[in-house]
Amino acid sequence: MPLKIACGQMEVIPGRPDLNTRKMLQMIEQARAEQADVILFPEMAIPGYLIGDRWEQPAYLDDCVHYGEEVVATSRGITVVFGNVAVEKRRFNHDGHPRKYNAAFVAQDGRLLPGMAGKDFVMKAALPNYREFDDPRYFTAAPQECGVRHLKLAKSVLPVPVTIRGQEYRFGIMLCEDGWTEHYPFHIPRLLVENGAQILCNISCSPFTLGKNGKRHRVFGSQAAELKVPVVYCNNIGVQNNGKDVFTCDGQSCVYGPNGRIQSAAPMYSEYLLTFTWDEATDRIRAASYKDEIVTTEDDEAEVTYKALRFGLDRFLKQAGINRMVLGISGGIDSAVAAALYADVLGPRHVLLINMPSQYNSALTKSMAQQLAENIGANYTVVPITESITHTVNQLYSPIHSYESNRDFKLALDGLMYQNIQARDRGSRLLAGFAAAYRGGFSCNANKAELSVGYGTFYGDIAGVIAPLGDLWKHQVYALGHYLNETVYHKEAIPRAIFEIQPSAELCKEQTVGNGGDPLRYEYHDYLLRAFVENWDKASPVEILEHYMNHDLDSFLGCAPGTTDRVFHSNADFCADLERWYGLFTGLAVAKRIQAPPVLALSRRAYGYDYREAQLPAYLPRRYGELKAELLKQERLF
Amino acid sequence: MPLKIACGQMEVIPGRPDLNTRKMLQMIEQARAEQADVILFPEMAIPGYLIGDRWEQPAYLDDCVHYGEEVVATSRGITVVFGNVAVEKRRFNHDGHPRKYNAAFVAQDGRLLPGMAGKDFVMKAALPNYREFDDPRYFTAAPQECGVRHLKLAKSVLPVPVTIRGQEYRFGIMLCEDGWTEHYPFHIPRLLVENGAQILCNISCSPFTLGKNGKRHRVFGSQAAELKVPVVYCNNIGVQNNGKDVFTCDGQSCVYGPNGRIQSAAPMYSEYLLTFTWDEATDRIRAASYKDEIVTTEDDEAEVTYKALRFGLDRFLKQAGINRMVLGISGGIDSAVAAALYADVLGPRHVLLINMPSQYNSALTKSMAQQLAENIGANYTVVPITESITHTVNQLYSPIHSYESNRDFKLALDGLMYQNIQARDRGSRLLAGFAAAYRGGFSCNANKAELSVGYGTFYGDIAGVIAPLGDLWKHQVYALGHYLNETVYHKEAIPRAIFEIQPSAELCKEQTVGNGGDPLRYEYHDYLLRAFVENWDKASPVEILEHYMNHDLDSFLGCAPGTTDRVFHSNADFCADLERWYGLFTGLAVAKRIQAPPVLALSRRAYGYDYREAQLPAYLPRRYGELKAELLKQERLF
Repeated sequence: MPLKIACGQMEVIPGRPDLNTRKMLQMIEQARAEQADVILFPEMAIPGYLIGDRWEQPAYLDDCVHYGEEVVATSRGITVVFGNVAVEKRRFNHDGHPRKYNAAFVAQDGRLLPGMAGKDFVMKAALPNYREFDDPRYFTAAPQECGVRHLKLAKSVLPVPVTIRGQEYRFGIMLCEDGWTEHYPFHIPRLLVENGAQILCNISCSPFTLGKNGKRHRVFGSQAAELKVPVVYCNNIGVQNNGKDVFTCDGQSCVYGPNGRIQSAAPMYSEYLLTFTWDEATDRIRAASYKDEIVTTEDDEAEVTYKALRFGLDRFLKQAGINRMVLGISGGIDSAVAAALYADVLGPRHVLLINMPSQYNSALTKSMAQQLAENIGANYTVVPITESITHTVNQLYSPIHSYESNRDFKLALDGLMYQNIQARDRGSRLLAGFAAAYRGGFSCNANKAELSVGYGTFYGDIAGVIAPLGDLWKHQVYALGHYLNETVYHKEAIPRAIFEIQPSAELCKEQTVGNGGDPLRYEYHDYLLRAFVENWDKASPVEILEHYMNHDLDSFLGCAPGTTDRVFHSNADFCADLERWYGLFTGLAVAKRIQAPPVLALSRRAYGYDYREAQLPAYLPRRYGELKAELLKQERLF
Repeated sequence: MPLKIACGQMEVIPGRPDLNTRKMLQMIEQARAEQADVILFPEMAIPGYLIGDRWEQPAYLDDCVHYGEEVVATSRGITVVFGNVAVEKRRFNHDGHPRKYNAAFVAQDGRLLPGMAGKDFVMKAALPNYREFDDPRYFTAAPQECGVRHLKLAKSVLPVPVTIRGQEYRFGIMLCEDGWTEHYPFHIPRLLVENGAQILCNISCSPFTLGKNGKRHRVFGSQAAELKVPVVYCNNIGVQNNGKDVFTCDGQSCVYGPNGRIQSAAPMYSEYLLTFTWDEATDRIRAASYKDEIVTTEDDEAEVTYKALRFGLDRFLKQAGINRMVLGISGGIDSAVAAALYADVLGPRHVLLINMPSQYNSALTKSMAQQLAENIGANYTVVPITESITHTVNQLYSPIHSYESNRDFKLALDGLMYQNIQARDRGSRLLAGFAAAYRGGFSCNANKAELSVGYGTFYGDIAGVIAPLGDLWKHQVYALGHYLNETVYHKEAIPRAIFEIQPSAELCKEQTVGNGGDPLRYEYHDYLLRAFVENWDKASPVEILEHYMNHDLDSFLGCAPGTTDRVFHSNADFCADLERWYGLFTGLAVAKRIQAPPVLALSRRAYGYDYREAQLPAYLPRRYGELKAELLKQERLF
């Protein structure tokens, strides 16, 4: 008789072991009602995964252990596999904290089954330590534990034998990264199967990343096909953050048959009990619920961006106790897209849009701002900043007394200062004030290109409770805007003109949507900056110049063919531009990012804790100077 | 003939391998001139150590390798031991990045001597992964490399044989944490000596921490005594940061004789070539330069706090290109101490103090602010905020149109909003504006108690280029103030009344220095909050309540005996207070810290990257509820 297996795609709330346990007990009941033999829960289902140094608090660990025991106690008549922290109080991690493992427990009839290396849990072997992951900061890995005890890892990675209705099944249990060990000196799925596993279960806490699902399907699918066993992937949903970055866990739990193909899948961003049967004799998977539409190998970028942002914003704001948001609305694309998104998440009646014109704002953008508010049905007001700016400027000219020379002096203002005064007046004086009075938060609408080079003002437009577009390049913001109009609002909620005008800050008379826009040429700089931050091997001006001189920069960057040629008129221009933006990217922009609001992470590398930065002095690699000297001997490369 | 060894306590500039190499070449020349046989340089002397994900940029690694070769090339007639990154481009770390080691190279006569495991460098075995350290994120550890190649670590940790004037000496080279392996399954100093090392050299990049020098003297001294070899500790000076935290490296390189005692030491925070002779036959160390005053086992807290802050601020501001600072000056202790410190670092003529009164500021604090400016000889001005506040409040009452209901409405303000408006007006409108016009930065004067509970305003007083007092508890701020007056200014630069008034924000008529001060009772809360963040095993309300019920809370927290008894009048009061501040500490304050300026790190655990935090929902451990129920059955515990 085939086994019935349930995959408990639950919402995990990091920091709330009590609520997570309650949810698990409910799902166990539900699985029992559906006659499931086995239920799986995600990695760190009880404590949550991204909880920062809360891992160092013994009282929190005690609670996680306690709630783990509660789950074990409810396993009468069902086998429960769940992720939790395992604690050994009398042993130590290298740093002297009590020893902890990122562990999977298998419980049946109120007791734990034997795990690994003589313990009653399976320990994670591959502890990720890149991007946002910090596993080795907190946990001891299986290879470390085996090493200390002179055990061979290959002989310790054993499946858990589970007896159900008198028959023994060997479950290969692993945790998240254990399934992604391309560059590790061990291959957990293979070791498990070599040691007799008949089915592989990967319990994960896997944050959504654009493009990652397709990769997972390839990696896990080929694991199943190569090792000729089914692979079950059990992920959670929810938001987890590490301060600077807010990640969504997208669920999408699924089961891959021994043919490598997905047999059944749970939806994205919804709690779901995915059940299927597995006939060990024939290795056939039968899905009680088959979600055909879920099983795509590559995602539509705008669609999944929208889904991730919508879910992430909703949960993040709820957790922060925020149900109303204030946005400065300039008539430009970023604030318009953000406004449409918040109105979708919170309902337009809980969104307050504020247009804050100075003498530099055009009639066109002001009217677009109002039009947008009307289109989406939000709250709207216009609050000019001219009077306040005049007052501030007058105050900045106050006489200052020097107690050294016993004389008075005055300061002088330049244009850039004047622009930043406007931005701060809007952000810190008005938006922050309105947000408090509206009993909500306010939004930072900076996009990733702006954050990359610090094109934004400290405590001005770089301020707010969260930056929903902070991990989107400008071209992705436009694409999201089109998606919102077409698929969410089914109308031109964001007026067409907003897509068509030239992006401009409108902070001085030279900056206009008509002829003086942003200094960034997004069709090129989006891609240039992306190479600096998102390439796995981070690009520097050296590689950029090499590809430019090799006539294949557009393809290296992934921008439209011919872009470089169109944007630059001389080699000297090219170099000056490259040095300017790289200098900002590694310079003042770092200081701004350190104090920037949290970013909703979507890409392969988001600013914040995912991309870790020090404030470093300006530096160009040696080779750059050599290449540049060579290049500038030529008049024009192309 | 004894060997002459030089310890190159250089200033390392992270991110500038070119400048660091130039400095090393100069010191090599100097050592040669002093007839040294061997010169040591610190860990990661070429690249710097805290450089964030710059480690992922191949062009940067190429440069570090190149400059390493330059150093090797200059080693004619001298043996040079230096820290650098070692890169193996054709192999990978677990994450797929090129394999890197935190390595020590030993060069002699233009070539590298054999290191470890068949390589031409010694690799760090103990990679710290706590506090601010992220070594395993970037580097492969010796035990990992040995494991993959089936080498025994104990047989691979070999001293480097160095032949000088025909005699072979076996140098045991290790890197920083290798000397601190209490909780690791291996003991590098012992292995080195067991394998024949005659002298141990620990090259480090060791950030200053209050209390750490005493500990190092005990740990390294007993290593030397136990293993009966001299131990040389070579540290750098300089500032290194990881964005949220700025650390100082304090130097204090020294040599411990086989008796465990310090034989010679370099000064704190100065570049220095520490030279001494070592007679291998007698194991006698003779110091060419003996700095008696340096060799203290325990530091005077206010003195080293001052030294660390002075050096750290100086270097951090220089690197940021800032040579003038603006401070809001309230007449309270925090801004007064900060002002005295900046005036000392930058010179008073480069400091602009601004008093920004509203109707709530007392004549006393206003006069103290002016008096302070006069005492230290700074620049001073008074800029009232009343007019701006009135204007802002009027604007916040602007009619708002609801496009859903097609009606207008207005918002309402409460007292707390009104207070925050004042704080933002001062910080983001005036200080930021003045800082730009003054062509400098402005300071965040928040102390650690305020940052702990978020007692401060986003974009108001929690804003600025750096928070020099952000890792000092309120009582440490007072102590620093007294130190500045007594030892630096030799007069009452900070007027006595500033030490005597009750701390108060003066943001409403209830908050006065006379009778309505801060809600924090620093004599208790400083210590309570410290236990939450600085205790190695983080305290939670459970331990606090346990100790309270056990009548030993004061001693657990380290506050003055009798404090708890004096501050609280009932058990219910105690619990309410504990829940209030723990709730803020784990709640809104986290959101504020995420966007707070960088902190100059001094303590065992500074906010930022040293203490990593997620925004988590409110949660009290289970046991707390049980204890509280038990406690509240009693009328009054004491």
